[in-house]
Amino acid sequence: MAEYDSKTFKSTTLYAITDKMWSLNIGASMLSWDMHTGAPEGGNESRAKALAALSSEAFALSISDEMKRALEELEDVQDNLDEITAAAVRICRKNYDSTRKIPIEEMRAYQELTANAETIWRNAKQKNDFAAFAPTLTQIIAYNKRFTTYRGFTGNPYNTLLDDYEPGMTTDELDAFFAKVKATIVPLLKRITEAKKKIDTSFVNRPISVKKQKKLAALLIEKIGFDLTHGQIRESAHPFTTSFGRNDVRITTHYYETEFLSSFYSVIHECGHGIYGQGIMDGIVDTILDNGISMGIGESQSRFYENMIGRSLSFWELIYPELMAIVGDEFKDITAKQFYEAANSARASLIRVEADELTYSLHVIIRYEIEKLLINGEIDVMELPRIWNEKYQEYLGITPPDDSRGVLQDVHWSAGMFGYFPSYSLGNAYGAQILATMEKDLDLKELIRSGNIGKITAWLRERIHRYGSIKIPSDLIRAISGEALNADYYVRYLTDKFEALYEL
Amino acid sequence: MAEYDSKTFKSTTLYAITDKMWSLNIGASMLSWDMHTGAPEGGNESRAKALAALSSEAFALSISDEMKRALEELEDVQDNLDEITAAAVRICRKNYDSTRKIPIEEMRAYQELTANAETIWRNAKQKNDFAAFAPTLTQIIAYNKRFTTYRGFTGNPYNTLLDDYEPGMTTDELDAFFAKVKATIVPLLKRITEAKKKIDTSFVNRPISVKKQKKLAALLIEKIGFDLTHGQIRESAHPFTTSFGRNDVRITTHYYETEFLSSFYSVIHECGHGIYGQGIMDGIVDTILDNGISMGIGESQSRFYENMIGRSLSFWELIYPELMAIVGDEFKDITAKQFYEAANSARASLIRVEADELTYSLHVIIRYEIEKLLINGEIDVMELPRIWNEKYQEYLGITPPDDSRGVLQDVHWSAGMFGYFPSYSLGNAYGAQILATMEKDLDLKELIRSGNIGKITAWLRERIHRYGSIKIPSDLIRAISGEALNADYYVRYLTDKFEALYEL
Repeated sequence: MAEYDSKTFKSTTLYAITDKMWSLNIGASMLSWDMHTGAPEGGNESRAKALAALSSEAFALSISDEMKRALEELEDVQDNLDEITAAAVRICRKNYDSTRKIPIEEMRAYQELTANAETIWRNAKQKNDFAAFAPTLTQIIAYNKRFTTYRGFTGNPYNTLLDDYEPGMTTDELDAFFAKVKATIVPLLKRITEAKKKIDTSFVNRPISVKKQKKLAALLIEKIGFDLTHGQIRESAHPFTTSFGRNDVRITTHYYETEFLSSFYSVIHECGHGIYGQGIMDGIVDTILDNGISMGIGESQSRFYENMIGRSLSFWELIYPELMAIVGDEFKDITAKQFYEAANSARASLIRVEADELTYSLHVIIRYEIEKLLINGEIDVMELPRIWNEKYQEYLGITPPDDSRGVLQDVHWSAGMFGYFPSYSLGNAYGAQILATMEKDLDLKELIRSGNIGKITAWLRERIHRYGSIKIPSDLIRAISGEALNADYYVRYLTDKFEALYEL
Repeated sequence: MAEYDSKTFKSTTLYAITDKMWSLNIGASMLSWDMHTGAPEGGNESRAKALAALSSEAFALSISDEMKRALEELEDVQDNLDEITAAAVRICRKNYDSTRKIPIEEMRAYQELTANAETIWRNAKQKNDFAAFAPTLTQIIAYNKRFTTYRGFTGNPYNTLLDDYEPGMTTDELDAFFAKVKATIVPLLKRITEAKKKIDTSFVNRPISVKKQKKLAALLIEKIGFDLTHGQIRESAHPFTTSFGRNDVRITTHYYETEFLSSFYSVIHECGHGIYGQGIMDGIVDTILDNGISMGIGESQSRFYENMIGRSLSFWELIYPELMAIVGDEFKDITAKQFYEAANSARASLIRVEADELTYSLHVIIRYEIEKLLINGEIDVMELPRIWNEKYQEYLGITPPDDSRGVLQDVHWSAGMFGYFPSYSLGNAYGAQILATMEKDLDLKELIRSGNIGKITAWLRERIHRYGSIKIPSDLIRAISGEALNADYYVRYLTDKFEALYEL
C-alpha cells in the first residue's frame, strides 16, 4: 500500500487557497444539507442567498489570479511533485481552465440562463409541453458547444464535457463500450420478456409503516457497515449523499409505506457512497482531495453495495431473520429467495430512475447517443421527442405515451449537465470489473451470508476508497484489474445473473 | 410606526462588506447549529475547523482597512445618515475599534489563552480545584483590564465591558439599580422563608415520557405563537436559540423525564427569543441589523414570555385542559393553581441557572459586584472563593459547600465574558417596566386566559421586535415607558407577585 503524506502539499500556496475554498464549500454544503433535511420553508430564500454567496466566494478563488500564480509555480516543477500535490494541481488547473477560457460575459449569461432553466423545464414537464422547454434547451446546448470550442477538445467536442464527470473518458471508448452493452442487453431483455418463468413481485407493495422501515434502515446500515460516528442518516424528498470530508459523510432516504424496497435499496446505495467517503486516507482528510474521484467511480461503489451485495441471494439470506422480526406477520409467507427474485425482476420501463439493474444502461445509452448528436450539431432540438421515442422503441420495445414520461423526464439538461449520464453506466461496468478481480481474492457469497461485509469494504478501501481524488479512474481500474475498462465483465455479469434468475 | 427603508444603506460600501460578513456568519452559525443538534461526533474537529475559518474570515472583514474606509466615508456625513445606515455604522465602528485599538499580538495571545481556558475551567470545576483555574483567570482578567485601557473608558473601566453586552450601560446606573433590587429581594426572600404558607412542589418530579413532553412542547409553541414556518425546534444538551435572520429562527430544548418543568419553561423562554427574532421588520431582513439589539433586551423578551406570561395563573388555566389530555392520569389530582404555585416557588439556592424568578437577580448581583472589584483591581483572584461564599451567605443565607457549586459554577469568565451577567437582571427589569406600560393598553390576564397571546406579541413587535438592532436599549425603553430604566417597576412586580403567592 503506497504511503501518502500531504506535508509538502500543505506547505504550498495552492493549499492555502484551496483550504479557504474547502471551508467555504463546507459552509455551503451544510446550508444545502440543512435545506434538504428539514429546514423551515420560510427561510429558504434567505439561506439560499447565503449559500450562493459562500459558493461564489469559493468559485472566485478557484479562478483567481492568486490561483493562477499558485498553479504556475507548481507546474514549473511539475516533474518533482509528489502525487498529492500533483493531483491537487490537476484538479485546480482543470477548474481554472474550464472557466477562465470562457469569456466572462458568456459565463455570466450562461449562469443566468441555467439558473432559470430548471423552473422552465419543470413547468414544461408538468404540462407535457416540450415546445415550452425547447428554446431554453437550444440555448443551453449552443453555449455548451461554444464552451467546448473555447476550452478545446481532442477528437470529439463531447469529450471535453465527458471529462468533467469522468476524467479521461472519450467517445471512442464509450462507443465501443455501449455497443457491447447494447448488443447484450437488448436481446437478453427480449428473452426475459418471452421467458416461461415469471417473477412474483405482487407482495412488494404490502404496506410497512415508516417506523418499521426506519428500523429496517438501521439494520441495513449496520449490516452494510456505514459508520454512524462519522456519518448520519436523515430523510429528504430524494435520497442523496453529501460529504463534509472523510470524518462526516451523510446520507438520506425517503420512506413510502407501500414501496419498502424503494427506501431499502436507496439506503444501501447511499451507504455505498458513504462508505467510499468514509474510507479516504488520513493524509488528505479535509483537503480538496478528500472526496471521490469521479461520478463513475462513485456510482461503481454505490451500485456495488446496492446490486452486487444488496441484490444478492446471500444478502437476503443474511438479513432474512432480522427482517422478518421487524416486518412481522405480513410477510411470513415470503421466503428469502422470493425477496431476492422480486428485488431483481427485470422489465422494460419508461423512467430511468425506476429502472432495474438490467435495463438501466439502456436508458443511459439513449441519452448518451442523443447528447453526442446534439453537441455535434447533427440533430435539431425539435427533433428530440421523435428521436427519443424511436430509441425507446428500438432498445426497450416501448414508446413513451407523452414527453413528460419521455424526453422531459430528467432534470440534467436544464442544468447544462451534458456528459453526466454515461457515468451511471460506467459505474455499473467498473463495478462488474472490480467484482471479477475481487472474486479471485474473496468468497463473496460466503462473506455476505455470514455478515462479513466489512472484509469486502476493506478490499475496496485499500484499492479505491483511500485514494480519494488522487488517482484518476483509468489508473484505479488498471491498478485493480490489470487492464483498462472492459465491457466484457459487465455484460458477462448481467448475462450470468439474469439467465440464472429467469432460468434461460 | 416609523417606516424604515434600507435602500440607502444597501447602496453603501459598508453594506457590501457587511453582506459578505453576513453570509460567512450564516455559514458558521449553521455549522454550529448542526454541531449542537445531532451532528456525528467523529466529524467535530473537521467541522470546527471550517467553522473557525468562516468566522475568522468574517472577523477579518470587520477589522479590515476596507471596513475602515467604508466607515469613515459615512462618518464624514454622519448627520445626514438615515437611521438604518447610522445603526450599521454604530455597530461596525464599535466592532472595529474594540479590536483594532488592541495590539494585534496581544489580541492573538488572548484568543489563544481563552481557547484553552474553558477546558482548564471545566477540569477545575470537576475536581473542585479553584487553584487550578486561578492562574488562567488571573491572566484573562489582566488582558481585559489592559484592553479597557486600549479601548478607552468613561468613568469606570468596567463600563467598556458592560457596553459590549448592553450598549450605553454604566456602573453608575447599575449600582443604583442593583441597590434597589437587593434592598427588596433580600428581605422579601427572608419573609418567604419564614412564611406560614409552604408551596407543594413534590409532584413536579413525577415522570413524563419524552414522547409526551414533545407533545407538550408543540402545545406550548402553538399557544405562545412561535412560527414554525420560519423556525424550528430540535434537541440539544442545553437549550438555546439561534437566528439565521428574521426568516429562520431556531430553538432547542432538552427533555428530562422527571423534570418536565425544565423543558416546559425552556421552550417558552426560547420561544420568547425566537418571537423577538421573527418580529424584525422587512427593511432590515438578512442584514447585520437583523438581530436583537442587546443581551438585556433579548432576555427581557425571553423572560417576558417565560415569567410574565408562562408563569402566570392565567397561562396555566389556558393550557390546563390540553396539558391534562397529554400527561394523563398521573396528574389528575393536581389543579391549574397548584401547577402555577409550584412553578413559582421561591427559595435560596446555590446554582444560578436553576434559580427561581425571585432569587435570580441575587445570583447576578454577586457576580456583578465581584467583576467590578476584579476589573478595578480591588481584589486578588485567590480571594474569590472567600468573597463569593461570603456574598452568598449575606444575600441568600447559604454558603456553597464547595467551589464547584460556588465560584466555579459559570463558564463565562473562562471565555472572558466580563460584563455579561448584568444583562440577565436587566432583562428582568426591562420586562417589568414594559409590563407596567403594556398593562395600560392591554388586559393581560384576559388575553392570556383566552389564548390571545398574539395580541401581546403584536404590542411587543410594534415597540421592540421590529427594530432589530436599530434602536439601542435606552432609547427603546424610553420610547415605550417615557422614562429611563427604573428598578421600581421590577421590585414592585416581584413584591406584588410573591407577597400574593406566599400570602405575606
